[in-house]
Amino acid sequence: MATSGLPFDDIRELLANLPGPDQAAVQAVRDRDAFLTKPPGALGRLEEIAEWLAAWTGRSPAVTRPLVAVFAGNHGVTKQGVSPFPPEVTAQMVSNFAAGGAAINQICIAHDLGLKVFDLALDYPTADITEEAALDERACAATMAFGMESIAGGTDLLCIGEMGIGNTTIAAAIFHALYGGSAKDWTGPGTGAQGDGLKRKIAAVEKAVKLHKAHLGDPLEVLRRLGGREIAAMAGAILAARMEKIPVIIDGYVATAAAALLHAANDTALDHCMIGHVSAEPGHAGAIARLGKTPLLSLDMRLGEGTGAALAAGIVKAAALCHSGMATFEQAGVSDKG
Amino acid sequence: MATSGLPFDDIRELLANLPGPDQAAVQAVRDRDAFLTKPPGALGRLEEIAEWLAAWTGRSPAVTRPLVAVFAGNHGVTKQGVSPFPPEVTAQMVSNFAAGGAAINQICIAHDLGLKVFDLALDYPTADITEEAALDERACAATMAFGMESIAGGTDLLCIGEMGIGNTTIAAAIFHALYGGSAKDWTGPGTGAQGDGLKRKIAAVEKAVKLHKAHLGDPLEVLRRLGGREIAAMAGAILAARMEKIPVIIDGYVATAAAALLHAANDTALDHCMIGHVSAEPGHAGAIARLGKTPLLSLDMRLGEGTGAALAAGIVKAAALCHSGMATFEQAGVSDKG
Repeated sequence: MATSGLPFDDIRELLANLPGPDQAAVQAVRDRDAFLTKPPGALGRLEEIAEWLAAWTGRSPAVTRPLVAVFAGNHGVTKQGVSPFPPEVTAQMVSNFAAGGAAINQICIAHDLGLKVFDLALDYPTADITEEAALDERACAATMAFGMESIAGGTDLLCIGEMGIGNTTIAAAIFHALYGGSAKDWTGPGTGAQGDGLKRKIAAVEKAVKLHKAHLGDPLEVLRRLGGREIAAMAGAILAARMEKIPVIIDGYVATAAAALLHAANDTALDHCMIGHVSAEPGHAGAIARLGKTPLLSLDMRLGEGTGAALAAGIVKAAALCHSGMATFEQAGVSDKG
Repeated sequence: MATSGLPFDDIRELLANLPGPDQAAVQAVRDRDAFLTKPPGALGRLEEIAEWLAAWTGRSPAVTRPLVAVFAGNHGVTKQGVSPFPPEVTAQMVSNFAAGGAAINQICIAHDLGLKVFDLALDYPTADITEEAALDERACAATMAFGMESIAGGTDLLCIGEMGIGNTTIAAAIFHALYGGSAKDWTGPGTGAQGDGLKRKIAAVEKAVKLHKAHLGDPLEVLRRLGGREIAAMAGAILAARMEKIPVIIDGYVATAAAALLHAANDTALDHCMIGHVSAEPGHAGAIARLGKTPLLSLDMRLGEGTGAALAAGIVKAAALCHSGMATFEQAGVSDKG
């Protein structure tokens, strides 16, 4: 990679040179699937998942070291009164993750998933996006690089989640910048903003996007101006997973905003990703549609923490096991169609 | 229970005297949920599931012995050429289940679920429903009783599945009898019937419902005339689970037909049940809507074997663990909403 120039140069180069799917591995899955003891196509999306795992790992479907990576950041925009919870909750929830008391801990136990939590300079919130850029280019690129390193060598199925009071405001601003419409279209209750709180949130999203309007044609500029540290780290992790042949399950509204930035830079950048769960946050379904994805689950959740991705990982593990573990018609002595 | 009279009498008495939900256990779940470290409602359907488990077990949500029960039967209607697979496949697949080679085996491994397979007189297919009643009342009631016994004491979450070449024809006939419309509305490809095969299937459903038309006002008559042994056993198991405080996850199109018979007899009979997965079989979504249910998963599967219910059980296990394992705001030292 280039080492001179601006901090984003290396990332731009990566985004312009993404590896594609392994078609031979996909074909091997299709060939085996045709002989498994079930009618063709009867496992529906589980069959698609088996092909997807093969496409992006380059080998037969297997999930042996699934990992949920949760990135936590704080946001200056909380000064605008956009969340019913105080910003201290971000660090408190990181402690709760460490102590095993959060929802994501329970889902990881239920589905036997590893969990790593990365807190990103929580004592130094990003700048208030309604007043200035969240991060300078150097800090943004460094945080992306941290996200890239965070997953090195550690998993064969990566679930991407986040925690950060104020970050549904950040995500709404990113979607508004990328996809247009009005601030209201993209701004939902998050942890429970309503009434005046929701009005303040919509106003903050509108003001931020207007302030940075001249610079929003470049997705990496959208990231550093309207994003946050957990957004940058998630984008880095998703990108690194592509380079390291690790399929990714993206969680909810906020994680999808990080993914959408990569997609805006290169519309094949999320081909190794699925969306685990469509959030109850109103803008999520529309954002997912713009990415050309169909979420695996729809359970009216809106928590973040990687919970939707972790639940989806349970389905993905089962899909891999169906493909690898099922007997063929010949092995089982089962008559095929007449 | 009464021991004299007609074989169905005991079942009619059970159906008329079903126990209701435990409202105190539900209230205890709501009380605890309000203090867990998440915004209210943020776990969406996982919170509903925790309440549902409490309502029908009468205690705090926990899933420690989940069981998938697969009932297998053979059907005289296969003589009408309704399936692309020969009827021998039912017994062959039962052997495949025993050997661990089927899809349901892999999903049970993935989600740590017990699996019991009950083959119901596979050498003695039921009569061809286009010519006569599938079963006499005594055999039908005895098979329901077998289904009731099959789950005794063995589980705290029951997934109901089936295997039986020809049984999507049976299920279509049951739905057509219960819900009207045309035979075509309820008849889908099943294991892959198409073209002339699908036409034969639709014709068989139409002929069977016409033949038995005068007797279809009574759901137990629908069961014995148009059903089959696995249908009767599943209906029995669902009913016994209600009496024994065991919540039930119903699998796909065929298992839902068994459940629908109970619902037709008493519209509260499935309050302890959820539908695990909406099948790709075209009639399933409409049948589920008539039961007033919302399926947990939608993954384009159409295999049976309990596969959709077993995948849903992974979600239900996670929901129970979230409720029981999460810390409260006070325990975790997390600030509640301002």
